[in-house]
Amino acid sequence: MSGEIPLTEYLFRRLRSTGLRAVHGVPGDYNLTLLDHVIPSGLEWVGNCNELNAAYAADGYARIKGIGAIVTTFGVGELSAINAIAGSYAEMAPVVHIVGTPVRALQEKGVKLHHTFCSGSKRDYELFAEMYAKVTVAQADLVDIEHAPGEIDRVIRECILQSRPVYIQLPMDLVDAKVPVSLLDQELDLKPAVNDVALQSGVCDILVHRIMGAKQPLILVDGGTSRYGLSKLTEALVKVTNFPTTTTPFGKGIMDETLPNFHGIYATVGDHDYTSYVNSCDLIINIGPVHSNVNTYYFATVPDKTVTITIERDSIQVGERIWKISPASVLDQVISTLTKEGVPKIETYPTLPNMQQTLATLPTNNSPADRFAQTNFWRRMSRFLRSGDIILTETGTPSMGGRDFILPQNTTIINSAVWLSIGFMLPATQGAALAQRHLSASESQRPAAQGRTILFQGDGSFQMTAQELSTIIRNRLDVIIFLINNNGYTIERLIHGPEEHYNDVASWRYLEAPSFFGAEATSTSYPIFKAKVSTWGELDRIMDDREFHSGKGLRMVEVMMEMQDCNDTLRLLLDIYKTKKG
Amino acid sequence: MSGEIPLTEYLFRRLRSTGLRAVHGVPGDYNLTLLDHVIPSGLEWVGNCNELNAAYAADGYARIKGIGAIVTTFGVGELSAINAIAGSYAEMAPVVHIVGTPVRALQEKGVKLHHTFCSGSKRDYELFAEMYAKVTVAQADLVDIEHAPGEIDRVIRECILQSRPVYIQLPMDLVDAKVPVSLLDQELDLKPAVNDVALQSGVCDILVHRIMGAKQPLILVDGGTSRYGLSKLTEALVKVTNFPTTTTPFGKGIMDETLPNFHGIYATVGDHDYTSYVNSCDLIINIGPVHSNVNTYYFATVPDKTVTITIERDSIQVGERIWKISPASVLDQVISTLTKEGVPKIETYPTLPNMQQTLATLPTNNSPADRFAQTNFWRRMSRFLRSGDIILTETGTPSMGGRDFILPQNTTIINSAVWLSIGFMLPATQGAALAQRHLSASESQRPAAQGRTILFQGDGSFQMTAQELSTIIRNRLDVIIFLINNNGYTIERLIHGPEEHYNDVASWRYLEAPSFFGAEATSTSYPIFKAKVSTWGELDRIMDDREFHSGKGLRMVEVMMEMQDCNDTLRLLLDIYKTKKG
Repeated sequence: MSGEIPLTEYLFRRLRSTGLRAVHGVPGDYNLTLLDHVIPSGLEWVGNCNELNAAYAADGYARIKGIGAIVTTFGVGELSAINAIAGSYAEMAPVVHIVGTPVRALQEKGVKLHHTFCSGSKRDYELFAEMYAKVTVAQADLVDIEHAPGEIDRVIRECILQSRPVYIQLPMDLVDAKVPVSLLDQELDLKPAVNDVALQSGVCDILVHRIMGAKQPLILVDGGTSRYGLSKLTEALVKVTNFPTTTTPFGKGIMDETLPNFHGIYATVGDHDYTSYVNSCDLIINIGPVHSNVNTYYFATVPDKTVTITIERDSIQVGERIWKISPASVLDQVISTLTKEGVPKIETYPTLPNMQQTLATLPTNNSPADRFAQTNFWRRMSRFLRSGDIILTETGTPSMGGRDFILPQNTTIINSAVWLSIGFMLPATQGAALAQRHLSASESQRPAAQGRTILFQGDGSFQMTAQELSTIIRNRLDVIIFLINNNGYTIERLIHGPEEHYNDVASWRYLEAPSFFGAEATSTSYPIFKAKVSTWGELDRIMDDREFHSGKGLRMVEVMMEMQDCNDTLRLLLDIYKTKKG
Repeated sequence: MSGEIPLTEYLFRRLRSTGLRAVHGVPGDYNLTLLDHVIPSGLEWVGNCNELNAAYAADGYARIKGIGAIVTTFGVGELSAINAIAGSYAEMAPVVHIVGTPVRALQEKGVKLHHTFCSGSKRDYELFAEMYAKVTVAQADLVDIEHAPGEIDRVIRECILQSRPVYIQLPMDLVDAKVPVSLLDQELDLKPAVNDVALQSGVCDILVHRIMGAKQPLILVDGGTSRYGLSKLTEALVKVTNFPTTTTPFGKGIMDETLPNFHGIYATVGDHDYTSYVNSCDLIINIGPVHSNVNTYYFATVPDKTVTITIERDSIQVGERIWKISPASVLDQVISTLTKEGVPKIETYPTLPNMQQTLATLPTNNSPADRFAQTNFWRRMSRFLRSGDIILTETGTPSMGGRDFILPQNTTIINSAVWLSIGFMLPATQGAALAQRHLSASESQRPAAQGRTILFQGDGSFQMTAQELSTIIRNRLDVIIFLINNNGYTIERLIHGPEEHYNDVASWRYLEAPSFFGAEATSTSYPIFKAKVSTWGELDRIMDDREFHSGKGLRMVEVMMEMQDCNDTLRLLLDIYKTKKG
């Protein structure tokens, strides 16, 4: 083995060492030679239909596998992807965006190349990177071979530690430049900063003291929990304290919903309006908060700081006091202490819904001929879900519907609660399904490796990025799609213009999609299942079909719903929204 | 009629006064109330499938109608569109991008709304506008109702005068704010600056002197010619001088190709390698130059400045001397003078190909059973083209193929020579076909109003934005599509990796597209024609079919080509490209 490897191979091998197994993207003339290194580095190449979709897919992949990557070409390619990368930033998905850029000397001279504004100035080659600096946490322009490996290591580290996207520019003339292979011997350091022992003990004591003394506590799990690698510790905390535990919409799926002290999403409307309990809490442990309007019922579920312990990525806050500290080892120490000492049972455990009881006693007051109503569709779909499933709920009525799910253990929900870019979920499903396959193939014993990938999506959002169904088919990914056909942008209709033409979409023949996008109708290795359902009876027949619920291939169900139907959660939320005007 | 109208209506009526008849876009919760004003202002709403496509469509519309507009929502919507707007900037299409933004007070306070990064700072509301400032020539954030109408006028004027995109942010709480209707009485001033009479005469004299004295002249028409509104004047100049006239690839379609002194694209390779003639020219009149690498055969056709008169949007350069001046009235005066005085015939008219002769004597040495080869496919397709046609050639082999076309009078070519973002042409076709319909409906007598809209596109680029075929169908636009199925990104294969997997695309059943996207198979008012052709005989049968070539509706032909086939132009160009590495 030579003592040197191409820079691009160094980059890809570094990424592989963090768990990456697939690179998404689109070829372009500034990145073709770069792509030659994908497979030799032990990675798969997934060619998406366009760059926005590729970046969405990389995001979906990252949410399952802990790292995602996309390659685009300079200018046109990267700009097409920027909305998805901004979404990865907003919702904390660790995606590495690699851009193949023109030869350095041509950039320096401001040569009027295609994919630029041909101003004749070097500025042409700086504009897009400046945009990307706004939507990524670290950037590297690999113009200097000597420092390039270090730069690569730096941005990958930031990507994973901050769980946010980073941006790498790789000029064509350095794609094959050589770097010492020995650099790979030194493992990437991905550990968070080590805490000062005394500080950690001090913070631990304060937390233990607050927890042991709590009379009316609440644990509120939010989306940051999984992104900061705190899911397991949080579950341990929930178990050792037995405190009433809830989640935000964005945090859904992180907690084991079968625990007796788990009580679903903390809302300020409907069955889960726990406001009266929460308002008199003397302790709220808020883990990984993400305080967007849609994740907090317009800030109504943001806990009162004076009674709250807030666990952030790199800090812990108790009341007004805040410590810069890595929370994982603090939590670990807290849990050990609590386990040893035993947390006193709280005096009056509140009357809050038990999710498993709710599921067991779900009313089924629909006759088989009844058409669906979103008010009970989503909760009833809970019965279809199984341990290990990855469930994606697209922004719109599916995302709001997904708040009604009652989940088995070890399920993963991918939803959006900040960026809300419709069209995200179908490509993200491609990425997530591939990541799930890569879990299966690896040594990992994660339950997700045994589950299914299930997408719930509306017709309007499907149209945005529909071609990525062909990438699912081409890669023979096992996916179940429930396509809610409610004749347009229902969530927009409910906000404004219920009957307005601008909320309509074209009428597609959705079930022709697999054939159009290239699937073989009669393949046994990658079977295609298609059905249109309008009634409970029709849906139940499918649900009971073993082929459908456990089979392989692409399974696509078009679920016909009323144009202005939504679940209660969304209806109540919209009442708030309309008064807040934003 | 009230003395006041809503600000949004003011905006739309102003746009209508410039010729706009349709607004493209996608609804979103920050723009819904804004969309209520589209129809009342006398405009059509075209809801596209996603924002990138909407912006591409608005660009296509603008290239025909002289103005285009797109409405998106804040954040997710505008970022999805930014690549297309950057393309409008690069290739000079006048597109107005209107973004519906959150209520001003919420922006000011940095409230953590969805479609932001939820940083809690006002910065969240500035980032995307900063990006747009890099890809538009004027911007307005309409936060002040008193100045809003003036701001609107300012940016629309810049859009049209500079023929480049502009960016308007309209906060939700000002959408319905009232402005005096009387402001509409004052027409938008869209005239270029008036030249100083003495200066204009001086420049005119110099130009006339140079033209009258030229022994070996050339007129070189480039893409800026149409964008600066100089097409008719240029044609007059070509006619009055009888000088040998050529075009660049980007300028193709601007000149009347039936003129005896028109000699096609000036290339440095193949039949049109006029280098030996041009190198000894004593006068080159270069109108609207766009000196990108792909438009100039890697800068080889950029004229020698010392013998060149360069006509720019707002300047004229002769040798090293440059005057800031509006060129239209100078050209007008030059043409009057030349008409009066008569331009002496040049001594030895060069031997350059006559396009009509070439067309008339095209060899047809193909038997009906022969498969296509790009080497003669494109030139032969010239016979299908008619006066009034709008012809779109997507980046890739079609764009290079389009260089071979010999055009009838009054045809319009839409191609790309700077930005080269594949996926552009299908949505642009939607926009162009709608603009063509709006020409028909208006008082305009432009021949384009009587022509057809014809797209030549590859399979790879079709996959990028395929869903916009549904917008074509939904709006019942008459479009002919030749989809070149050559099994992947052929132009990339020719650059690098001829057999590489990353240059493959999924195998779609392209002709199922109309049905999947909702077309009625048997409609008489909007008929669907579909055919797959692999041989000259099959193609000829279609070309001879009256239904096909003059009928209405959607006509889609899948043209099967070899995976690594391209025309001679592209092959020669790639030889240069590979040595230049960029």
